[in-house]
Amino acid sequence: MQKLLLTILILTLAIQTDVKGQEYIGFEESDPVKMGWMQGFPPPQDKIVSAIDGSFFRFPALRYSVCHMRQFMPTTVVKASKDKRYKFRVRLDNTIDGVTFMPTNSSKPMTWRESLGKNYTDGMLILHKGRIVYEKYFGELKPDGLHAAMSVSKTFSGTLGGLLVDEGLLDANKTGADYIPELAGSAFGDATIRQILDMTTGLKYSEDYSNPKAEIWAFSAAGNPFPKPASYKGPTNYYDYLKTVQKEGRHGEVFGYKTVNTDVMGWIVSRVSGKSIPELLSDRIWKPLGTHFDGYFQIDGAGIAFAGGGFSANMRDMAMFGEMVRKKGKFNKKQILPESLIEDIMNGGDREAFAKSAYSSLPGWSYRNMWWHTHNEHGAFAARGVHGQTIYIDPTAEMVIVRFSSHPEAKNAKIDPTSLPAYHAVAKYLISK
Amino acid sequence: MQKLLLTILILTLAIQTDVKGQEYIGFEESDPVKMGWMQGFPPPQDKIVSAIDGSFFRFPALRYSVCHMRQFMPTTVVKASKDKRYKFRVRLDNTIDGVTFMPTNSSKPMTWRESLGKNYTDGMLILHKGRIVYEKYFGELKPDGLHAAMSVSKTFSGTLGGLLVDEGLLDANKTGADYIPELAGSAFGDATIRQILDMTTGLKYSEDYSNPKAEIWAFSAAGNPFPKPASYKGPTNYYDYLKTVQKEGRHGEVFGYKTVNTDVMGWIVSRVSGKSIPELLSDRIWKPLGTHFDGYFQIDGAGIAFAGGGFSANMRDMAMFGEMVRKKGKFNKKQILPESLIEDIMNGGDREAFAKSAYSSLPGWSYRNMWWHTHNEHGAFAARGVHGQTIYIDPTAEMVIVRFSSHPEAKNAKIDPTSLPAYHAVAKYLISK
Repeated sequence: MQKLLLTILILTLAIQTDVKGQEYIGFEESDPVKMGWMQGFPPPQDKIVSAIDGSFFRFPALRYSVCHMRQFMPTTVVKASKDKRYKFRVRLDNTIDGVTFMPTNSSKPMTWRESLGKNYTDGMLILHKGRIVYEKYFGELKPDGLHAAMSVSKTFSGTLGGLLVDEGLLDANKTGADYIPELAGSAFGDATIRQILDMTTGLKYSEDYSNPKAEIWAFSAAGNPFPKPASYKGPTNYYDYLKTVQKEGRHGEVFGYKTVNTDVMGWIVSRVSGKSIPELLSDRIWKPLGTHFDGYFQIDGAGIAFAGGGFSANMRDMAMFGEMVRKKGKFNKKQILPESLIEDIMNGGDREAFAKSAYSSLPGWSYRNMWWHTHNEHGAFAARGVHGQTIYIDPTAEMVIVRFSSHPEAKNAKIDPTSLPAYHAVAKYLISK
Repeated sequence: MQKLLLTILILTLAIQTDVKGQEYIGFEESDPVKMGWMQGFPPPQDKIVSAIDGSFFRFPALRYSVCHMRQFMPTTVVKASKDKRYKFRVRLDNTIDGVTFMPTNSSKPMTWRESLGKNYTDGMLILHKGRIVYEKYFGELKPDGLHAAMSVSKTFSGTLGGLLVDEGLLDANKTGADYIPELAGSAFGDATIRQILDMTTGLKYSEDYSNPKAEIWAFSAAGNPFPKPASYKGPTNYYDYLKTVQKEGRHGEVFGYKTVNTDVMGWIVSRVSGKSIPELLSDRIWKPLGTHFDGYFQIDGAGIAFAGGGFSANMRDMAMFGEMVRKKGKFNKKQILPESLIEDIMNGGDREAFAKSAYSSLPGWSYRNMWWHTHNEHGAFAARGVHGQTIYIDPTAEMVIVRFSSHPEAKNAKIDPTSLPAYHAVAKYLISK
């Protein structure tokens, strides 16, 4: 059971403690196709990866698993467009491979191409002015494949929350308990929709999983879709757990990146809209975009989607979403999201609240509607997930980057130094073109 | 664990003992949408169905679950066509609703329309000369949804086996052990490919799950994708179980409908082709057909697809397959399967071996390449699965029927009396039109 908890834990984690000094095999050596995970009939015993023993989420097997999450757990569909599927124009520019940047805290320049391996990239797509200018697939990821989005999932849930606020179905100043009376006794009871969307809630909730008493363990156990041991007496789904989260400090003052905020938002969005996050995402975004491939969410034992991290999707489909946001909600000849919502996201969140948080590696950033805002000179903002997932939007450069990745370290602090400066360098290159 | 075994067991069962005299609520009353299964955020406790406690597969919750199998277990995809998706011509003929037939062993005539409710139909599609002339969806099944195919899955695995025989990759006279040396010590070691494909193997293997010592229990436990109890010492995947099946009697003499034959065929097909059943089905059939919706297979803990019963698919996509077979392998402007293979299927199997079997309710029938052959006056043949799944092909009437169903009884013997005569009556109506 401990192993099982670990499995789900890792899936739900947002901040992973650093495995200090650990050495990993490199990008080429860890190529999951070359390593032969789950190949053969049957696969050799040491190449079988499983959710049950947690092996599927250990690097390097992780590099296989992120492309096949449905093979490890129950899922529910996010339906793609049935007709009128969008086709990107493509004009590849392989000059990008040679774009050079200086990694953070380094004095040794690196090329864009080098950064791909350094970051254990599975897929990389760059749009410039809506056209695909760069597109690469590595290892297990194929153009028609899906990849775990990890906490990029949060951005979808947060955007849907923001959408309901924009449409007046949710009042940003009302509280969690106003919409979900069952939350009255929890920290979310008196947290406003705005505070939940921007993660400025004060929660007695630790995602430090090196601490066996951290609350993340209980959340993970509740959402675990596998059978629970007879001795287990805790909540048996995400919602029942969320009701138990206690308050610590005050709401609205400090940014605290905690997955449970997203799952509460998922609950509120579902209760108010009458649709699950996967259904609403499909109806309001995925189908209108003209996506090609059904995505899916992992679910708990009550069929509730893991709004904070359970989405898997296709890379080009992700790029459609990014481009739609860059174009202030317009895409595929439709206004898919309201311009006012996107402008709100592009304005960013409370930088002061962010500065008080633990995110010293992202100085000057903010968080709004579950989007990360760099507040850099280009006004770039992003969806971000562990192990290197991102949708990075640079409005000035008219650029959208989607990266799927399977870096051995979960924490983006390990991956950002060779990513964020690389994105910015490509942005500047595209502007100069 | 017992409940868990039961869950998988029910999934893998091919023949279910009769629940004598049990009364079930009717078609309308058991409508899963009206019953509210898994609706709400969260669903009410008594409306949550789960694979863990087996509740998802108990009637009437079953009526929800058959449309959402991926929500209960790990799955792997059967990719649909990416482009050039086939569109059926539609010319609905609702006169069919009034077609009357005499149920088997009954003296009271029934209309086609009445038969739909009687059989707890979730979806019904009739093609005549390749055109959709009848199409209905009930309860949880929607035109863009999927439904569990149950043992109709066998027909796909068997057809792929037949395909490899036709192409010379498999020799019908060679044995299981010739292709899978690990099968040498099992009943399949000296069974020929032909005997396995036609299920005339002699196996010490009971699918009578009213008997706690029946081998189906061990097969189910091996293929169960959920965590096994610490005390479990048996095989941990389908293949490891198949190696243990023992011989009883002689091969080639009596038809014995046992799921393990299909799973052995799946193993042989995969070993020889280098592709899993889901991959090969996608590459050789699903994509060439021009299907619209990804299907999926449930898998075991080693990622092995349940070839004998784990497929879920869309109804129109299923109809494309049926029509392709009716047209002797040609569909969507392509020869998808060899004409010789389809002719072999249309000729049927060993009627004498079938007559010696327990299938007294299907007099004169035979079984070939995992297709059931009626040998009726129209030469109709079918794929069949528990709870009423079928693809029924009537070459004389140029008719293909696909039915998805969630009858409270698994056994088709309970469903055939109001189905087979109904199909034949519609066939005669279509001929007379």
